[in-house]
Amino acid sequence: MMNDRVMPDPGTQKVTLVIFSGELDKALAGFNIANAAAAMGMEVTMFFTFWGLNVIRKSRGLSKPKDFARRLLGWMNPGGSRSLGLSRLHMFGLGTGMMKNLMRKERMPSLEQLISMAAGQGVHFVACTTSMNMMGLTEGDFIEEVKDFAGAASFLNEARQSHVTLFI
Amino acid sequence: MMNDRVMPDPGTQKVTLVIFSGELDKALAGFNIANAAAAMGMEVTMFFTFWGLNVIRKSRGLSKPKDFARRLLGWMNPGGSRSLGLSRLHMFGLGTGMMKNLMRKERMPSLEQLISMAAGQGVHFVACTTSMNMMGLTEGDFIEEVKDFAGAASFLNEARQSHVTLFI
Amino acid sequence: MMNDRVMPDPGTQKVTLVIFSGELDKALAGFNIANAAAAMGMEVTMFFTFWGLNVIRKSRGLSKPKDFARRLLGWMNPGGSRSLGLSRLHMFGLGTGMMKNLMRKERMPSLEQLISMAAGQGVHFVACTTSMNMMGLTEGDFIEEVKDFAGAASFLNEARQSHVTLFI
Repeated sequence: MMNDRVMPDPGTQKVTLVIFSGELDKALAGFNIANAAAAMGMEVTMFFTFWGLNVIRKSRGLSKPKDFARRLLGWMNPGGSRSLGLSRLHMFGLGTGMMKNLMRKERMPSLEQLISMAAGQGVHFVACTTSMNMMGLTEGDFIEEVKDFAGAASFLNEARQSHVTLFI
Repeated sequence: MMNDRVMPDPGTQKVTLVIFSGELDKALAGFNIANAAAAMGMEVTMFFTFWGLNVIRKSRGLSKPKDFARRLLGWMNPGGSRSLGLSRLHMFGLGTGMMKNLMRKERMPSLEQLISMAAGQGVHFVACTTSMNMMGLTEGDFIEEVKDFAGAASFLNEARQSHVTLFI
Repeated sequence: MMNDRVMPDPGTQKVTLVIFSGELDKALAGFNIANAAAAMGMEVTMFFTFWGLNVIRKSRGLSKPKDFARRLLGWMNPGGSRSLGLSRLHMFGLGTGMMKNLMRKERMPSLEQLISMAAGQGVHFVACTTSMNMMGLTEGDFIEEVKDFAGAASFLNEARQSHVTLFI
């Protein structure tokens, strides 16, 4: 049996990130790594799955799911990079707001700025179709930087060619 | 000094997953990746450690630890794939139940089905012996699909031969 | 275009760990892997970022930040390996204390012992400068085992030469 492509091609260096978490701090870590890798000339793919889909959802324009459970889910689990909280010290938004203030003070880019920097550097954004089905989300629910929609096999095909793969 | 085996063998493609978390959503992500990789012909090993041991514990038949602290731990931290909650929106089981309903509606396989699919595809399940000692668990506490019991060195030996390694 | 160093050098085997989480259980997992890898002759680098910085902070001697927000952050988010809680069952310290007791009973090394074992085995500890800036921490806030201070590019440069890279 032939393997499609067994070893990482020495001519390209790839980084593949799974963004599973919908938390601000983890999203910041993911996009910092993505931007640094892209700046170093590496090819970066970010797979957004489960709560990670919230990071790349439009803040408005939520599709209206027909069934009650998904409407409830949409209400409990709002999308958009601005609505994410920290994995700790969230404190009903107090800790999260404080962290955003500290970042502004230090002139650090916000998550929104990191997302457009990444898109500008050619980072591929992929939304996981299995999670989209489960959460009742459609392609129109995502920011325009998201061009690809795929499942686990597509992720694995990238990951096995990558020098660095992280689950965040 | 000779290395046992330095580079991934081009003839096999391995995936190694550490399942650290005992949360339903992360377990679903792990088993989705494992099943997709196995279906692509990759060799998959899942190392269950710490709370991840709960995913592969029998629902009943918990061994009765002698000491009070472990009995308390067993009571606070029940095992079995059916008792896992979500990493967010768990809401005393409400969010978790809703998610399971949505998955059923979409005809997605349940975690239990994903576990037996993985076993059927030859995915290796390994329980971490260090965590088992700490939690007072013995080999009989796990579902029959778990055939191997090993520590961090064994994990690293697999991981360094793998094309994709994730900590979930 | 030339790549700095495209494939892992067959003569060395590297492990790179990102310690993002400030939780006791994840820190234990990270240091168990680091120590096992070092004992197997692999070269290990641990990048501490975000809450992970707490793992390698001095328990005392916190620098007094000038601004109110950072002083508040320091108070809500104390450093030092002894102050970390579990990712679940923390229960205001009850579950965490019980786990530490179980580990002592099983004669397992404590996190502090694992940290000095790792340093003794030559594991490199790197603190993430971006996170340090955000949290208002300086080099003097860390235990003496921390010799390096660097950002995401330095992490990626290690990771792309590594056989195993994990985000913990």
